[in-house]
Amino acid sequence: MNRGRLETFADGVFAIAATLLILNVDAQVTGSGRSLGHELLHVWPSYVAYAVSFLTIGIIWVNHHAVIGQIGRVDRAFLFVNVAFLMCAAFIPFPTRLVAEHIRDHGAAAAAFTYGATLTTTAALFTALWLYAARDQRLLRPDADPRMVSGITRSYLPGPWLYLIATLVALASPTTSVLLFGAIALFYVLDSLIFGRT
Amino acid sequence: MNRGRLETFADGVFAIAATLLILNVDAQVTGSGRSLGHELLHVWPSYVAYAVSFLTIGIIWVNHHAVIGQIGRVDRAFLFVNVAFLMCAAFIPFPTRLVAEHIRDHGAAAAAFTYGATLTTTAALFTALWLYAARDQRLLRPDADPRMVSGITRSYLPGPWLYLIATLVALASPTTSVLLFGAIALFYVLDSLIFGRT
Amino acid sequence: MNRGRLETFADGVFAIAATLLILNVDAQVTGSGRSLGHELLHVWPSYVAYAVSFLTIGIIWVNHHAVIGQIGRVDRAFLFVNVAFLMCAAFIPFPTRLVAEHIRDHGAAAAAFTYGATLTTTAALFTALWLYAARDQRLLRPDADPRMVSGITRSYLPGPWLYLIATLVALASPTTSVLLFGAIALFYVLDSLIFGRT
Amino acid sequence: MNRGRLETFADGVFAIAATLLILNVDAQVTGSGRSLGHELLHVWPSYVAYAVSFLTIGIIWVNHHAVIGQIGRVDRAFLFVNVAFLMCAAFIPFPTRLVAEHIRDHGAAAAAFTYGATLTTTAALFTALWLYAARDQRLLRPDADPRMVSGITRSYLPGPWLYLIATLVALASPTTSVLLFGAIALFYVLDSLIFGRT
Repeated sequence: MNRGRLETFADGVFAIAATLLILNVDAQVTGSGRSLGHELLHVWPSYVAYAVSFLTIGIIWVNHHAVIGQIGRVDRAFLFVNVAFLMCAAFIPFPTRLVAEHIRDHGAAAAAFTYGATLTTTAALFTALWLYAARDQRLLRPDADPRMVSGITRSYLPGPWLYLIATLVALASPTTSVLLFGAIALFYVLDSLIFGRT
Repeated sequence: MNRGRLETFADGVFAIAATLLILNVDAQVTGSGRSLGHELLHVWPSYVAYAVSFLTIGIIWVNHHAVIGQIGRVDRAFLFVNVAFLMCAAFIPFPTRLVAEHIRDHGAAAAAFTYGATLTTTAALFTALWLYAARDQRLLRPDADPRMVSGITRSYLPGPWLYLIATLVALASPTTSVLLFGAIALFYVLDSLIFGRT
Repeated sequence: MNRGRLETFADGVFAIAATLLILNVDAQVTGSGRSLGHELLHVWPSYVAYAVSFLTIGIIWVNHHAVIGQIGRVDRAFLFVNVAFLMCAAFIPFPTRLVAEHIRDHGAAAAAFTYGATLTTTAALFTALWLYAARDQRLLRPDADPRMVSGITRSYLPGPWLYLIATLVALASPTTSVLLFGAIALFYVLDSLIFGRT
Repeated sequence: MNRGRLETFADGVFAIAATLLILNVDAQVTGSGRSLGHELLHVWPSYVAYAVSFLTIGIIWVNHHAVIGQIGRVDRAFLFVNVAFLMCAAFIPFPTRLVAEHIRDHGAAAAAFTYGATLTTTAALFTALWLYAARDQRLLRPDADPRMVSGITRSYLPGPWLYLIATLVALASPTTSVLLFGAIALFYVLDSLIFGRT
């Protein structure tokens, strides 16, 4: 398996998972009862959920590229950790719909917890993917920059823990939890923009 | 991130968003009540909406290629403006369904306005993507043709404003607004065909 | 626009349109009423329709490759004929569902006619795409083999007419029409296998 | 047809089929009746079915790469066996939903049998694809390693028979059958990991 085909499959999964998110918004607007304008305003959590999840998948895509860019070769174990990781990323549209639909009713905690559990597992498998490749430079390119490698490791390690904390917060306050998921995505983008320029 | 992977992800999103449009047509034909033949004729706005949105996404795809073709390298800011732009392009199937379903009832203004707001935001982010790359030749190829660069800038700048006007028209006359969206797409194709040959 | 990106977008549309076909089969099995086993047998037209449409899209994909393989460059007109052609190919899942659902009720003629009209238009645009590129060798590779070029032209010209005839047959006998669509696909595969080996 | 475009189309179908699986999970959670938390726990077969099918498609993707990696050229017959194979792989989301929805009711045997019949046919066509290419080295690369070629043949031949046995078991015990499908996938991953390291 060369790197190119790995990227084609992964990018396909990311692109489809991100684009399927619109089906969740679509399903919220049934056209029954009140006027369309009011209905479109009423489902605003769907738009926020769409934006946060699309952005999160976009960040995953950017990070996945960064990992693959440091890889020189792949083995079967790497391929299957990658499949397990994509399995979690492709799961994201489902809890996104749950949050959009239930954040304002009694299902809010269950929805936010499911969303968080999905992101936590995705982040943990992504970190596992990187650590498997980087440990003892197992799959790294011969010319991989050691400072960049340790920089990637440092920046990925907190991810699963941040998501785990936001997930546990869902049990006490679903709204706070969902705000944290949005904040993590925004923080990553801002950090990346500032770090990426210097 | 090399240009190739940026294109794979973007083309995936464009291809999926365009192909998902058929689900909107499909959902209009429920097979309940009148004969299938009459039903297929009755949902004609779905076909028009499908064609206009597919063509619009096709135009976005052609333009996105033109931008990427002038780019020599990408940075993190460019990647995230690109993700935000794709987020809007992937949103298009939703308001397309709204217009197809409601252009003949009381929701017409809300539907056409939502459609227009989506296209305006998409066009604005696309222009931002280009201006970010072209300003001071930040991300352009070293051999980018200055006349082509200023030509692209000139041709993209009016886009968001044209869509904004058509969107505001929706508040007064949804039908006129929708005709304008179709006209903008057709105008671009014709202009492109005439300009592209010389 | 280089050939590669044209192929990425087209292959994306073909792959998605073909894979979305399974949603039509899925929607036929609602689990209400009779036993699942009987229901799965009862919806057999869905499986046939799935197979014929998947195969047809597969043939379109093979043919599209043959055309692009003879192309040396693309212009804007070629791109937009290609977008219009993809718009028709991406439409195929909708009439496929109509045929699967209505071939045994009063909607059979309308369903088969819509299916045929879609395939006829797709075939006509595909022929137009090729003729535009091949006329006066406008977009052909400098080293394109003249005998292969005239062979492609000969083999594509009957396509739209065959589909038009099968479409008109739908008005008299929907079942015969649908059998013809299956026969055209099978004929192409067999012809291609025999021709492709020599 | 070059190998690259064959892989783009196949990877697209694999990525879409795998990502569409989440729609099956989504459709199980309707939000009606009991609390969301209970409902999310109640649909646990959906998560297992999602994981087994995603993993199975991931394995198919890895194997498809291994086959294409040994191929030097393709002919029309190979292309159409490949299309028929992809037709079966793209069918997987449908019986996955059946198993998830019916494994606990009277439809269990019909659901598990349909799932198994799909995987058996997919495995048989995949083996046919390989044997067609490898027989008399018809389409192999000139430098294909004979030991690798015979190793691939040996490892693919049992696949259809294993799936056939698990499919027939569905008629007596659907639950055992479904456990076997999961076990086959896990076995392949473990075998591949152990074999892939040495």
